[in-house]
Amino acid sequence: MSVSRDEFRDAMARLGAAVNVVTTDGIAGRAGFTASAVCSVTDDPPTLLVCLNRASRGNALFKRNGVLCVNTLASGCRSLSDAFAGKGGLDTDGRFALAQWSRLVTGAPVLDDAAVVAFDCRIAEVLEKGTHSVLFAEIEAIRQGAPGGALIWYRRGYHPVGEVEAV
Amino acid sequence: MSVSRDEFRDAMARLGAAVNVVTTDGIAGRAGFTASAVCSVTDDPPTLLVCLNRASRGNALFKRNGVLCVNTLASGCRSLSDAFAGKGGLDTDGRFALAQWSRLVTGAPVLDDAAVVAFDCRIAEVLEKGTHSVLFAEIEAIRQGAPGGALIWYRRGYHPVGEVEAV
Repeated sequence: MSVSRDEFRDAMARLGAAVNVVTTDGIAGRAGFTASAVCSVTDDPPTLLVCLNRASRGNALFKRNGVLCVNTLASGCRSLSDAFAGKGGLDTDGRFALAQWSRLVTGAPVLDDAAVVAFDCRIAEVLEKGTHSVLFAEIEAIRQGAPGGALIWYRRGYHPVGEVEAV
Repeated sequence: MSVSRDEFRDAMARLGAAVNVVTTDGIAGRAGFTASAVCSVTDDPPTLLVCLNRASRGNALFKRNGVLCVNTLASGCRSLSDAFAGKGGLDTDGRFALAQWSRLVTGAPVLDDAAVVAFDCRIAEVLEKGTHSVLFAEIEAIRQGAPGGALIWYRRGYHPVGEVEAV
């Protein structure tokens, strides 16, 4: 291929993105991971997508449960992001113990305080693309968090945005 | 549906994202639009996706040309973003006249100075989802821009990130 994996990753580090903890629960058990590859798809029906590594332990759990919640992190939540990204070596129970969670409609864990917004979704379609699964998820419920800043991942570091007025 | 279009849009405004000018050129002609719904999919082969409104004038042009370039904007480029988002009423030629462009491999217009990174891509697959087309695009070439900050769209406003060191 003309673009190497390292070139691709270095370039993608410049595509800034919100930091989300994506969770699931259900018949296959509870899981969660930190994701920046999340985006809006269509408002009819309200749908977003999440890209999930096919080699990850959680991949099969998300598909079997058929539900997920995208918790978009507030600017102060770097340690929660790190934990769900696998830094620190906590197991699933250890990660979830770091915050307070509740449920909305689907049963996927929804952050109580640490999210600027949470999207509670049912997985409607899965497309396998190379190393990743693209999960198309229809939104069944939304929880708006408190007003305030969000956490952005850019050039391999965390950046707060929106703590002051937009410029 | 249980989540209204307005609720969906208000919630999506809290999912911060990089601001990109996505361009095409070829047999169907030149077009460009401002997009925040862009994300990395897989590094094998290096692939990203772009969501494009099916009702937009450019939709058919992108598909016929079969190529696109994602130009991820630097923090100072709000006016370029506004122009390609349709604010100000400029036509296609007027929008492109606002910046300097060149070509890499596919022939899609690549920003010379205003991007932190540019992904020159060939459209490999299109998935229609409700109001939007999801364009899966394989990356044929990359141009890294100068170091510096990027432009983030969050809560319906622009925010610079990365102009100082990550925190």
